[in-house]
Amino acid sequence: MEDIRRKTVKTVLTEGASHAGEIVDVKGWVRTRRGNKNVQFVALNDGSTINNLQIVFDLSKFSDDDLKAITTGSSIHVQGELVASQGAGQSVEVQARELEVYGTAPGDYPLQKKGHTLEFLREKAHLRPRTNTFGAVLRIRHALAYAIHKFFNDKGFYYFHTPLITASDCEGAGAQFQVTTLPLNDLPKDEAGNIDYSQDFFGKLASLTVSGQLEGELGATALGLIYTFGPTFRAENSNTPRHLSEFWMIEPEMAFYEIADNMDLAEEFIKYCITYALEHCADDIKFLNDHFDKELIDRLKFVVENDFVRLPYTEGVKILEESGKKFEFPVYWGVDLASEHERYLVEEHFKKPVILTDYPKEIKAFYMKLNDDGKTVRAMDVLFPKIGEIIGGSQREENYEKLQKRIEELGLTGMDWYMDTRKYGTVPHSGFGLGFERLVLFVTGMQNIRDVIPFPRYPKNCEF
Amino acid sequence: MEDIRRKTVKTVLTEGASHAGEIVDVKGWVRTRRGNKNVQFVALNDGSTINNLQIVFDLSKFSDDDLKAITTGSSIHVQGELVASQGAGQSVEVQARELEVYGTAPGDYPLQKKGHTLEFLREKAHLRPRTNTFGAVLRIRHALAYAIHKFFNDKGFYYFHTPLITASDCEGAGAQFQVTTLPLNDLPKDEAGNIDYSQDFFGKLASLTVSGQLEGELGATALGLIYTFGPTFRAENSNTPRHLSEFWMIEPEMAFYEIADNMDLAEEFIKYCITYALEHCADDIKFLNDHFDKELIDRLKFVVENDFVRLPYTEGVKILEESGKKFEFPVYWGVDLASEHERYLVEEHFKKPVILTDYPKEIKAFYMKLNDDGKTVRAMDVLFPKIGEIIGGSQREENYEKLQKRIEELGLTGMDWYMDTRKYGTVPHSGFGLGFERLVLFVTGMQNIRDVIPFPRYPKNCEF
Repeated sequence: MEDIRRKTVKTVLTEGASHAGEIVDVKGWVRTRRGNKNVQFVALNDGSTINNLQIVFDLSKFSDDDLKAITTGSSIHVQGELVASQGAGQSVEVQARELEVYGTAPGDYPLQKKGHTLEFLREKAHLRPRTNTFGAVLRIRHALAYAIHKFFNDKGFYYFHTPLITASDCEGAGAQFQVTTLPLNDLPKDEAGNIDYSQDFFGKLASLTVSGQLEGELGATALGLIYTFGPTFRAENSNTPRHLSEFWMIEPEMAFYEIADNMDLAEEFIKYCITYALEHCADDIKFLNDHFDKELIDRLKFVVENDFVRLPYTEGVKILEESGKKFEFPVYWGVDLASEHERYLVEEHFKKPVILTDYPKEIKAFYMKLNDDGKTVRAMDVLFPKIGEIIGGSQREENYEKLQKRIEELGLTGMDWYMDTRKYGTVPHSGFGLGFERLVLFVTGMQNIRDVIPFPRYPKNCEF
Repeated sequence: MEDIRRKTVKTVLTEGASHAGEIVDVKGWVRTRRGNKNVQFVALNDGSTINNLQIVFDLSKFSDDDLKAITTGSSIHVQGELVASQGAGQSVEVQARELEVYGTAPGDYPLQKKGHTLEFLREKAHLRPRTNTFGAVLRIRHALAYAIHKFFNDKGFYYFHTPLITASDCEGAGAQFQVTTLPLNDLPKDEAGNIDYSQDFFGKLASLTVSGQLEGELGATALGLIYTFGPTFRAENSNTPRHLSEFWMIEPEMAFYEIADNMDLAEEFIKYCITYALEHCADDIKFLNDHFDKELIDRLKFVVENDFVRLPYTEGVKILEESGKKFEFPVYWGVDLASEHERYLVEEHFKKPVILTDYPKEIKAFYMKLNDDGKTVRAMDVLFPKIGEIIGGSQREENYEKLQKRIEELGLTGMDWYMDTRKYGTVPHSGFGLGFERLVLFVTGMQNIRDVIPFPRYPKNCEF
């Protein structure tokens, strides 16, 4: 073949008919092939976009034999002339001149047919990124991740890497996985017969983190504005479409931010991410809208275009109590709201995203700032249509004595390092957490969280 | 106080004297305080920059009593007039009108004095981001992370999240941490007396990943261009200034890239990151240059301004053998080069960064593409001054039979999912890995890898 610089399918399609007449070099995987005795049409995809590039093989130049290897899933290298397309559905196509087959795809290729169920594709997670659906989801996932970094960087935040392996479960946010190098068949014991963790890798019992927030506060009380974006682990035996054992979380933490600043940031942040996806992933979102969730684009625009309602928990509970609605779980002041309650407020009552604030202290974490009423804390949960809670955050208790009292009430120990942030130059500060897959779920309209991460981990599953 | 929008120290200093006369609102931590009977000068830092903002307290307006809480480490809120500064070292300062003390810092504040050793600060890792040195390192770390995302995003790569918890150790890149929820005091056993992992959380023995590459290849052979950027774990008992048990790694993987494309990308990538840091972190890099490593800026420019030498391993060994240099470790064809060898080539022989290619297959991983000589593989290591190997990569073996043969030679099992990339539409592809902390080490000039990550994990240490 000639030495021509390869172009991605996305580039060729974006340049379009303005480049007609050019000899292009393209590489990719065959999605479909169809045709007649005179001509064969191949839909080529290279992952750069959901759209395929049509390659036309004139059977007066290529024999059936040349083309027999080109089946769904095979990989090819083609050079040919870019021409304006006669057919519907594409502006340009390539009239093949040269063909190189990189790899065939035998008849047992699992993605032969279209229309596999998402359940089937979950078992083929190593190949599913080659489908339209998962290609779209993963490109959107990328765009959202990039939007997050860009948003925070542009605002002067520093990306702060909190540790994954930790010896503390201070937040109590969930069950933890233990991390060890001890030989389980021959565990060292101390004189009392207990496992001797001094011989473990870290010299003590170690686990995977459930949240980077506490370490994030150490960062914010030094660098001012920080965010984390990393994997987080929960060992709960939750077999639901909304839980993963390993997921990615974003946790910004801001010195000198009070609760209202925190709400402003959360609203601006999530609108920015969704807007970014709408602008940068239009084709992928349209595909998911058309194939899975006809209200997807409307729902995304609804969130971006509306001011979020800001409402104290106490008023929210009152609205729910007075709604006359039959809920599965009872509503009363002090209850941890269920998804059905959150969605009622968002979807039926306000018809807008809602930021619920000032929750009873008993149902929130120890580090949240106590209000003057002594009963509620400066928590804020951002509630979304379809999803319910998408962000949870709070202003943090910066008063050493009040926080120490709460820690003692709850019997937490080993918190000296955390308390040093309140002992030395304490400042008002706030932060929130966003489960990344919840955001991807919302923006893609997918139903199952296992379908928005490449290799989901959940009870009894860590394949690939 | 008046309701004035707060500005960061960085903003105030950047706007500079052009905003003189403005009443500004600033918040931060007191670094130092000095003065006389008429006036007191406070150096205020809020983490947004390494530079402090000077606050001037006129003792005719503030009493000693007002100011007694303002000691090193305390946190304050100040409003005052921005004026051109009389003193050396700053262009503007703030004439304080209003003062609010958020938090004092008792006399036992560990960062009272300047000039603490890095070893001492490692024990205070929860507070060390408040020092000039670690503030600078962490801001540079952020800038490098952002540069990485921006570089790949702008080139059409997709950020692909490979799993952290895995049931395979296919790469054999290192010792692994086990992840379990089994009760170690009461392990379930099967009839043969072996631990019954079917009762463990994932239904089998699970570990923390040592590399995301194999899963990355699944991404690249679907989406075309992907990169990973996430935590990676090694359970080796390595107590050195160059190893961490938990570190962050970047692994791009590119379908249709051959080894020369891979080298081009690696060189462009690393130059981009260093250039980005030089442009965006000038003050922080200058501080580290002046205080720790007087050759730092020269070394960074040296890398950016020079074409990397590209040299086969065989020729590199010949140069080393003929150098007449006494090395600690012997040099011969087939040896895995030591850091001293790599640094000789870079620092003494070529005086340029070197990309060494075509290593003996025995010292490289199973997945690297075999050359026609049957002895060497299309590996590439990028060698840097001071650091030695900073990037390791290769073209991957895309031929099913050759790869299967290598897997059988090495006795690897459970690789069917990986082999499917070669079975169905295999393509030439390449990738590389960069240990993020190695890059941060290089760009900051720090000596110990434990000083370039907020909370280092190493044998017997997982504090905070």
